[in-house]
Amino acid sequence: MVTTPNVTRRSMLAGTATVLAGGLLPWSAADVRAATAALPQTWDEEFDVVVVGTGFAGLAAAHEAAKAGSSVALLEKMRTPGGNSIISGGVIAAAGSPLQAEAEIEDTVDSLYDDMLKAGLHLNHPELARIVAEKSVETVQWTIDELGAEYTGLTHMGGHAVPRSYALAAGSGSGIIGPQLAKLKEMGVEPRTRTLLKRLIRDGDGRVKGVIAHSGFSHPDLESGTPISIKARKAVVLATGGFGADPVFRALQDPRLGGELDTTNQPGATSEALREALGIGCVLVQPSWIQLGPWTSPDERGFGRTPHFAQGVAASYGLWIDTQTGKRFVNELADRKTRADAMLAVGNKTVAFVDSAGYAKGSAAGRRERFERMKEAGVLMEYATLEEMAEAHEIPLAPLKATIETFNESVDAGADTEFGRYMQADAGKIGTPPFYVVRLSPKIHHTMGGCAINGDAQALDVLSSEPIAGLYVAGEAAGGIHGASRLGSCAYTDCLTFGRIAGRNAAAEKGWG
Amino acid sequence: MVTTPNVTRRSMLAGTATVLAGGLLPWSAADVRAATAALPQTWDEEFDVVVVGTGFAGLAAAHEAAKAGSSVALLEKMRTPGGNSIISGGVIAAAGSPLQAEAEIEDTVDSLYDDMLKAGLHLNHPELARIVAEKSVETVQWTIDELGAEYTGLTHMGGHAVPRSYALAAGSGSGIIGPQLAKLKEMGVEPRTRTLLKRLIRDGDGRVKGVIAHSGFSHPDLESGTPISIKARKAVVLATGGFGADPVFRALQDPRLGGELDTTNQPGATSEALREALGIGCVLVQPSWIQLGPWTSPDERGFGRTPHFAQGVAASYGLWIDTQTGKRFVNELADRKTRADAMLAVGNKTVAFVDSAGYAKGSAAGRRERFERMKEAGVLMEYATLEEMAEAHEIPLAPLKATIETFNESVDAGADTEFGRYMQADAGKIGTPPFYVVRLSPKIHHTMGGCAINGDAQALDVLSSEPIAGLYVAGEAAGGIHGASRLGSCAYTDCLTFGRIAGRNAAAEKGWG
Repeated sequence: MVTTPNVTRRSMLAGTATVLAGGLLPWSAADVRAATAALPQTWDEEFDVVVVGTGFAGLAAAHEAAKAGSSVALLEKMRTPGGNSIISGGVIAAAGSPLQAEAEIEDTVDSLYDDMLKAGLHLNHPELARIVAEKSVETVQWTIDELGAEYTGLTHMGGHAVPRSYALAAGSGSGIIGPQLAKLKEMGVEPRTRTLLKRLIRDGDGRVKGVIAHSGFSHPDLESGTPISIKARKAVVLATGGFGADPVFRALQDPRLGGELDTTNQPGATSEALREALGIGCVLVQPSWIQLGPWTSPDERGFGRTPHFAQGVAASYGLWIDTQTGKRFVNELADRKTRADAMLAVGNKTVAFVDSAGYAKGSAAGRRERFERMKEAGVLMEYATLEEMAEAHEIPLAPLKATIETFNESVDAGADTEFGRYMQADAGKIGTPPFYVVRLSPKIHHTMGGCAINGDAQALDVLSSEPIAGLYVAGEAAGGIHGASRLGSCAYTDCLTFGRIAGRNAAAEKGWG
Repeated sequence: MVTTPNVTRRSMLAGTATVLAGGLLPWSAADVRAATAALPQTWDEEFDVVVVGTGFAGLAAAHEAAKAGSSVALLEKMRTPGGNSIISGGVIAAAGSPLQAEAEIEDTVDSLYDDMLKAGLHLNHPELARIVAEKSVETVQWTIDELGAEYTGLTHMGGHAVPRSYALAAGSGSGIIGPQLAKLKEMGVEPRTRTLLKRLIRDGDGRVKGVIAHSGFSHPDLESGTPISIKARKAVVLATGGFGADPVFRALQDPRLGGELDTTNQPGATSEALREALGIGCVLVQPSWIQLGPWTSPDERGFGRTPHFAQGVAASYGLWIDTQTGKRFVNELADRKTRADAMLAVGNKTVAFVDSAGYAKGSAAGRRERFERMKEAGVLMEYATLEEMAEAHEIPLAPLKATIETFNESVDAGADTEFGRYMQADAGKIGTPPFYVVRLSPKIHHTMGGCAINGDAQALDVLSSEPIAGLYVAGEAAGGIHGASRLGSCAYTDCLTFGRIAGRNAAAEKGWG
């Protein structure tokens, strides 16, 4: 049981302040004010590092902290570990990688950085985006060398200048989460599931010194479970994800995105941990940038399997079509925001299709079985002729044929004259029946905003903009890395890179008691 | 002097929580957690209502609170009252107004609301935007009936469907701030200048009960002045403006906008009051939407006089030209974001010009003198011929002439065929020398984000999304009203409307002691 907190703590009223050349820094770091109740008189448990969340970032942080010799408490509010990461699409970006070298694809850190900033509308915090790009190859290689993750090859994700995304053999984030959990178990760290972060304990000296958690928590009942206090001798790492499944907080930041919109996120992607972090003095940055995934289907719930077809096959070998006009409406390999915006702009009645030749090219071993299951579920539809496809989806036939003709001329020319789409080396003309098609509809996928951090993954204080001692934030809970819109496959690189940074830095802290 | 705070207050650790149908509400209202030091044992001063800030919103709140019989402390950190309001452009939007009726301009609340949401990219909190639109005529009429504000007529601001903005005879916000201060003085309320809000005191029961201020404050030295505690028996109204003059906080939310960018704001438009509000549990919404004013000149500092020419004259009777091409590049009456984005997209080398006929039409009495001063300062330039103007600004002459010819055909046709600009009834062909021109360059003008409020101007709590007892926020310090981009002349309506709401509601509180 939680002990009764004592109520003595320092007043920070008087404070001091700093005036910087060229700008006013509101309050000095010394002026930080603790926002939580004071420390418990005794703690129920004690660890060097408390990691909250078991997606890529949380597990990477726990891994590095444990490897550095720290004792680690690893908390997960849901019944199973893995967060959104475990159900995500299974692709991780790296610029200048060994697989690119094999495929003779030239790529640079600058090119990935530029792509991230272009998609992010240059709202990205440049130093954070650069870290992701610079560490990308090291991070992917770490998943291979340290975790034993298995990849099938490279794929070309929307908004990237070149194919640079490693595709996991598992076809989802489980291909990394699984090995992460296994390695952590070897190191003696296991997730404590159904354990909710209820309170971050920030002391009067400004340092985060532990948490109140609820064990036996049953999502989404925030009253459930038994409070326990856990001391963090060195630091707390917050890796609690985004708020994509939280319509209340979404609507605060973008009123269009409340209510009944579907999301690709797992149900635990709610805002309570972020709100708690803000309540003890973290700074919220860029919260109104909420990404819609453009490659999802209204015919299945959540992320589903459609992205593997719409993005992995149809965007490279087929076309995305506005069913009302029979025309293309966007570069099918544009970044997510561009595509989702375009889909909504044409009235959200779009399909992605491919002919049998493209289907064969795009269907790598792992995919074929997935596609069969999509067919069984009625999500992926097969038509013997273009006429049948057009009729079934109420696409005007003549414009559709003209659209295909124009694209086929682009294939001959080696360049997409309509939308400038990257042409795959093995792209072919569209025309061989049968045709495979999915309906498309965007879903809430990633929340770009979150707690402000620096390059060391330290959370910044809302009063001073200085680091909050004892608190790291990594993964989707952190804001600013991706600006207005995250590029596909960059979340893996971001979460693993900053998770590792957070874990290493947490373990290296001197600690407080 | 400030008294030593005692340190007893309730712990909110255990708390309760609420699960809503259709969404998870992170913590219940009962679970709110005080974030400040506890109450002073004794207060230096005591009022019913403490209003912080003396722009439109703060003065309107003080006015209504005093009128309702409350004692009011009115704090202003700078040496003079008025904030950004007093130096603003002097136009206030109202839909369906008496002046529109006189001019036979049809307009509706829905039309203003639609314009606000279009400019705001539909990120506006709909209920807040609607209040501004619905109260717009009442608010303008209040400035006339209650304050005696004087207007010269209507003007057509960018992004508005029709002319609906009352233009102050004073040509700036001083035409309202002056009367507000005078009326307040009659009611016995005077601004206490050089008085910084240092701390909002939020008690363990979740209520804001007063402030710590620094009297004798000298901006921007946040260490300066003497701490005093002021009890607010009923409520505190935060009307502390935006952070347009704070490059550090700006850069946190939009890294492109830090550093050396000029702003139209007064130097006091910094973030420390907002940071303090967030530190005690307000929710920050939409902070990365920072508006650039498109009608400012690099040849003078701040807002200057150029907007009166570029917006008031050249956008209606002349043209805005990309000097590199000699062509128009945007609808000169589009909303601010559209225009500023377009200016940056063409490389930020643009001018606004008008011929002598347009100059005569656009130069109402008050303006002519302002324009003379602009000429003296070299900001407004006069050229005897189009050729001279083109040469001086390195505009290719032939394309410029073609651009004018196309526009003149649009004047004949009664519709702008190039950019769909609203055609003034008295618009004429461009061609009569001399020509008047200003250089343009966007400057940071308004920060759309701020504290989340409800329609009663109550601040919302970051943990619960429920109102924070005893705290109101109005004006630019509040977020969500304008979404992605505020329409010109809507700030007046917003600030005065929500300032009055905040003041009335604060005065109507039962109070706590």
